[in-house]
Amino acid sequence: MPEYELYYFDFPLRGEVARWLFVYGGIPFKDHRVSVEEWPKLKGNKKLFPYGVMPVLHVGNDRVAESHVINRFIARLAKLDHAEDPLDHARLDEVYELVRAFYDDAFKYVITVFGFIPGDKNKAFEEILVPAFEKHVPNIERNIKGNGWFSERGISHVDLFYGQLLDMLNIVAQDFLKSEPESYKFWQRVTAEPRIKEFVAKRKQ
Amino acid sequence: MPEYELYYFDFPLRGEVARWLFVYGGIPFKDHRVSVEEWPKLKGNKKLFPYGVMPVLHVGNDRVAESHVINRFIARLAKLDHAEDPLDHARLDEVYELVRAFYDDAFKYVITVFGFIPGDKNKAFEEILVPAFEKHVPNIERNIKGNGWFSERGISHVDLFYGQLLDMLNIVAQDFLKSEPESYKFWQRVTAEPRIKEFVAKRKQ
Repeated sequence: MPEYELYYFDFPLRGEVARWLFVYGGIPFKDHRVSVEEWPKLKGNKKLFPYGVMPVLHVGNDRVAESHVINRFIARLAKLDHAEDPLDHARLDEVYELVRAFYDDAFKYVITVFGFIPGDKNKAFEEILVPAFEKHVPNIERNIKGNGWFSERGISHVDLFYGQLLDMLNIVAQDFLKSEPESYKFWQRVTAEPRIKEFVAKRKQ
Repeated sequence: MPEYELYYFDFPLRGEVARWLFVYGGIPFKDHRVSVEEWPKLKGNKKLFPYGVMPVLHVGNDRVAESHVINRFIARLAKLDHAEDPLDHARLDEVYELVRAFYDDAFKYVITVFGFIPGDKNKAFEEILVPAFEKHVPNIERNIKGNGWFSERGISHVDLFYGQLLDMLNIVAQDFLKSEPESYKFWQRVTAEPRIKEFVAKRKQ
């Protein structure tokens, strides 16, 4: 069995979906948390970070980089990508792309709130987050099936991806998310999954 | 057996990789070519274009949309995604993301040349294509293995994706591509594959 070691900052954002996928899939992994202060000293370590970026996933002696690549890799590993049904898999991949587009837009707001890029938070809320939500979320929500997930076959990596994005928004724009019932319910549904619930509860302590 | 029908404009660009994947994989498909004039009349047809966009792939009574989703779907179908080796698959997925980032940047130049967006071609060459090439291509080329492909296991969907992107640049910026020996050789290598060679030769008649 290969040993999985994930390296990312000690906060959610781009590395968090990978953690959720491991946790939900019941796959043991080492969750290396690199502090913002440590990172400049560590990123030149080619053995640990061959690409000079995080998240990076060590799989035995191999390295997998780029968050979406890592997500898809763990999704396959955890059998959360519905690969056994090629059309369901492709349909989930469509939704993944919709969520990815929303993530890319919303991320600018999130990193403004966290102070990683300069900018007025209220202005960023009105000019970035709200339009991104209006543009992407109706297309995403249209794909939620009667069972509450993006596939009639049950939960997938894409539900965890979208749930984690909503969880991030619940941290930085809680009142806003609460005012959007469909997405708020989706966030509640994902974070009510026992293993995710436990992970998130521990994370917040 | 499902029947595959691809709808896209009568030119390469975002639908062409799908065609190459079908052709290389020896999978029969209907290559519907929609003219630029026809498209505004057809795009409201929800049966043909449920998302109002092209490319769209009809698989029996199902529809798959979004070029990367379609590419990955056909890659699996044609066994060109090396899914049998999860780490090789992930490594190829990494290169796919690098090529995708280059495609997104270079595409702005291509559609300027074709007149789909306004802009001066020479200015776009200097300000868009050249910097995009310098930014992305060294990272992509670093992944070419001794056998000339992105995996030591042999050709994959990512080679066809990058080869098709270079083929597009060979149409709009031939002299530039010729001046870049590594990429030029890669383009020659992909388009020398018998089925691709035959398809491209017919396409240009």
